[in-house]
Amino acid sequence: MRNIKLILEYDGTNFLGWQIQPNGRTVQREIEQSLKQLFQEDIRVHSAGRTDAGVHALGQVVNFRVEKQIPLFSIQRALNSLLPEEIRVLAVEETTTDFDARYSAVKRHYRYLISLVPTAINRLYCWYVAQPLDLNLMNECAQLIIGEHDFKSFCQAGAKVKNYQCKVEKAGWHAEGKRLIFDIVANRFLHNMVRILVGTMVEVGTTRLTVAEFAKILANRDRTQAGPTAPARGLFLVQVFYNNA
Amino acid sequence: MRNIKLILEYDGTNFLGWQIQPNGRTVQREIEQSLKQLFQEDIRVHSAGRTDAGVHALGQVVNFRVEKQIPLFSIQRALNSLLPEEIRVLAVEETTTDFDARYSAVKRHYRYLISLVPTAINRLYCWYVAQPLDLNLMNECAQLIIGEHDFKSFCQAGAKVKNYQCKVEKAGWHAEGKRLIFDIVANRFLHNMVRILVGTMVEVGTTRLTVAEFAKILANRDRTQAGPTAPARGLFLVQVFYNNA
Repeated sequence: MRNIKLILEYDGTNFLGWQIQPNGRTVQREIEQSLKQLFQEDIRVHSAGRTDAGVHALGQVVNFRVEKQIPLFSIQRALNSLLPEEIRVLAVEETTTDFDARYSAVKRHYRYLISLVPTAINRLYCWYVAQPLDLNLMNECAQLIIGEHDFKSFCQAGAKVKNYQCKVEKAGWHAEGKRLIFDIVANRFLHNMVRILVGTMVEVGTTRLTVAEFAKILANRDRTQAGPTAPARGLFLVQVFYNNA
Repeated sequence: MRNIKLILEYDGTNFLGWQIQPNGRTVQREIEQSLKQLFQEDIRVHSAGRTDAGVHALGQVVNFRVEKQIPLFSIQRALNSLLPEEIRVLAVEETTTDFDARYSAVKRHYRYLISLVPTAINRLYCWYVAQPLDLNLMNECAQLIIGEHDFKSFCQAGAKVKNYQCKVEKAGWHAEGKRLIFDIVANRFLHNMVRILVGTMVEVGTTRLTVAEFAKILANRDRTQAGPTAPARGLFLVQVFYNNA
């Protein structure tokens, strides 16, 4: 069996997220339907991260196993002609038998975009925040989450996980013109973690919360104390990292 | 009568262009409908450039005349809440009585974006060209159009204009990562001029045409000799320039 790895870019706007659902359009379903057309068999794909409805990907990684010997270049070309324009296959490679896009991943990079001005062209790819934001305060919060912490306060209530420990390697905000960009790299992410972190840091940026209160929220392991969940449209899965790759 | 000037950003994807048409959704219609709701009277708006279906604007300028004394800030806020998200009012100001967005304009800046890689997120805001392009050759063409020329070869056949003279002040390509960006500033633009110029320069970039042939096409004043019209989705009206502003 060949084990094929794809790197995908997609616009999450008109999808109910990554994962196949009984009703509705998902990225996984589109990929599996296109693979079925191409290989003439049912193929299950595994992804590094199950992005939610409206969340985008610049470098989602998936893998699937197949016998048929279609050249890699032809797989990419065929998929890009079968898939809707909202999903593009950026790269295709044959990988080791044991590679699994999800379980082999050692860290992931997410990005969140905020626009400080109303925008038409980028409206589906950022959160427009009308209030002034203090970037320094937001970066003080970002500093506090670097390292290994229990992120229960920043995990959607009711998520079924055994533990809430995540190792955050990088987290920081920077400005680019009228946009604020939050980059975070961690070994794992809890459900809605980046969006709740961003929603809470924006509360600090507007001075509705202090940095000290943010620190307490992190320590208290209680979702109800954190801020609102920032909109999906601003979130991008940028890159997935693997050992030896 | 107050004369109000608006600066607009819009995503042209789902519009049949700027100008009101008997059937179909246009930017002008959306603006006029919103103004009618706000001012409770019929208001005609005049724009600096009538963008075609699918063409975007980062800085379209329009003006309209009205009696009612609604403060400028409230006009902006109200319009942005009445208009679809695809149109944003970036600025509102009261201007001189004789100002006309179209006839007072002294030059306009258009931009065209090409992506050299398949893209999902930006698919509606660029033209994906799969073949390698020689940027130097394309810039040699851009140099040739600077100055005052007859652009009949780069004007949609059948356009009703008295003369085809345009003064091009700036024209040039540059690369930004995997994107090629063409910027052009001129006193006026003929119908589809930027898109036909881009389509023809891409023919030179792929070496299907030589720079010398491009020069001949410009000289020959014949649309049939020029290249294809580049897709609308890559074109942006960036800025409109006025005297004393």
